[in-house]
Amino acid sequence: MPKLWNETIEEHRRAVRDAVLETTAALVAEHGLRGVTMSRIAEKSGIGRATLYKYFPDIESIMMAWHERRIAAHLDELAELRDRPGAPGERLEAVLERYAFIQQQRGGHGGELSAVLHRGDHVVHAEQHLRHFVRGLLEEGVRAGEVRSDVAPDELTGYCLHALAGAGGLTSKAAVRRLVTVTLAGLRPPG
Amino acid sequence: MPKLWNETIEEHRRAVRDAVLETTAALVAEHGLRGVTMSRIAEKSGIGRATLYKYFPDIESIMMAWHERRIAAHLDELAELRDRPGAPGERLEAVLERYAFIQQQRGGHGGELSAVLHRGDHVVHAEQHLRHFVRGLLEEGVRAGEVRSDVAPDELTGYCLHALAGAGGLTSKAAVRRLVTVTLAGLRPPG
Repeated sequence: MPKLWNETIEEHRRAVRDAVLETTAALVAEHGLRGVTMSRIAEKSGIGRATLYKYFPDIESIMMAWHERRIAAHLDELAELRDRPGAPGERLEAVLERYAFIQQQRGGHGGELSAVLHRGDHVVHAEQHLRHFVRGLLEEGVRAGEVRSDVAPDELTGYCLHALAGAGGLTSKAAVRRLVTVTLAGLRPPG
Repeated sequence: MPKLWNETIEEHRRAVRDAVLETTAALVAEHGLRGVTMSRIAEKSGIGRATLYKYFPDIESIMMAWHERRIAAHLDELAELRDRPGAPGERLEAVLERYAFIQQQRGGHGGELSAVLHRGDHVVHAEQHLRHFVRGLLEEGVRAGEVRSDVAPDELTGYCLHALAGAGGLTSKAAVRRLVTVTLAGLRPPG
């Protein structure tokens, strides 16, 4: 059965959008935010300049959409690790380690681009989502006796996320893993 | 014996400078960076506008000087706690707790002012100084068997400072103390 016309259109739009996001991210990574033009993006994405402007008004909005998609993918990845079978402590470790690696990759964004991307509302939402998510895992850990219960899970969430933000300055995977080990040690029941 | 003329001049200059820094900081805290003018600062400091311009070209440079002086005072305070008698672990705790309270106060700066202040070179120097300082304390702690030796002191320094930066979002002193407790737990020798 042939696809409905609307579905075909929708698929095509999504494919163009994805191509524009990938192309722009690659160009910005290579030349910096100021070294890229809308014409160059259109050319490299294989579409006309007028078509590109039907999708996005400027480079910042493309990078914002790219960032939003990337953050959503990261949150999905973390949710997948959380939902695996296993003790809460193990799943917490898997999630925090993945989060730390994400922070390490982010370290490469560069100041100017980072400032633009983090202006978006989507970042605030993603942070809230992440906090909620980590807090849930910590609460499970407290119930299982694997996480300290003398400090509220909300405060422990702030501790974790701040401590792991330090992964942004680390250059090796081994150093990131050590940071996760130290951060987890802070979460264990005292005594 | 009367003071030398140069000393008197020097003292007077310092007094004027201090008055300008205090007045400006108070005005900016009340009205925000954009709600303050050089004329108002001169008036409130009890000096002429022309005199003020002999000391500072603009409000940003006054706030930068104020911030530099404040950071220096904080570092002195931390050094004083480090140099007290006691076991390395106790002194580490005292220093990290004080640092966390400083971070908590800083939370009130506000985004715009913070962005201006942290543009200064003095902040980079202060951060290097602080890292060096905390690393020294951690090294002492490792030698005394009070701090874990399986992770390099330099990495533990990054962990501490990032984790304690979270104090900026905390509203009570008790919450700051809990954050310090959790952070210190991460530093203890595993076992």
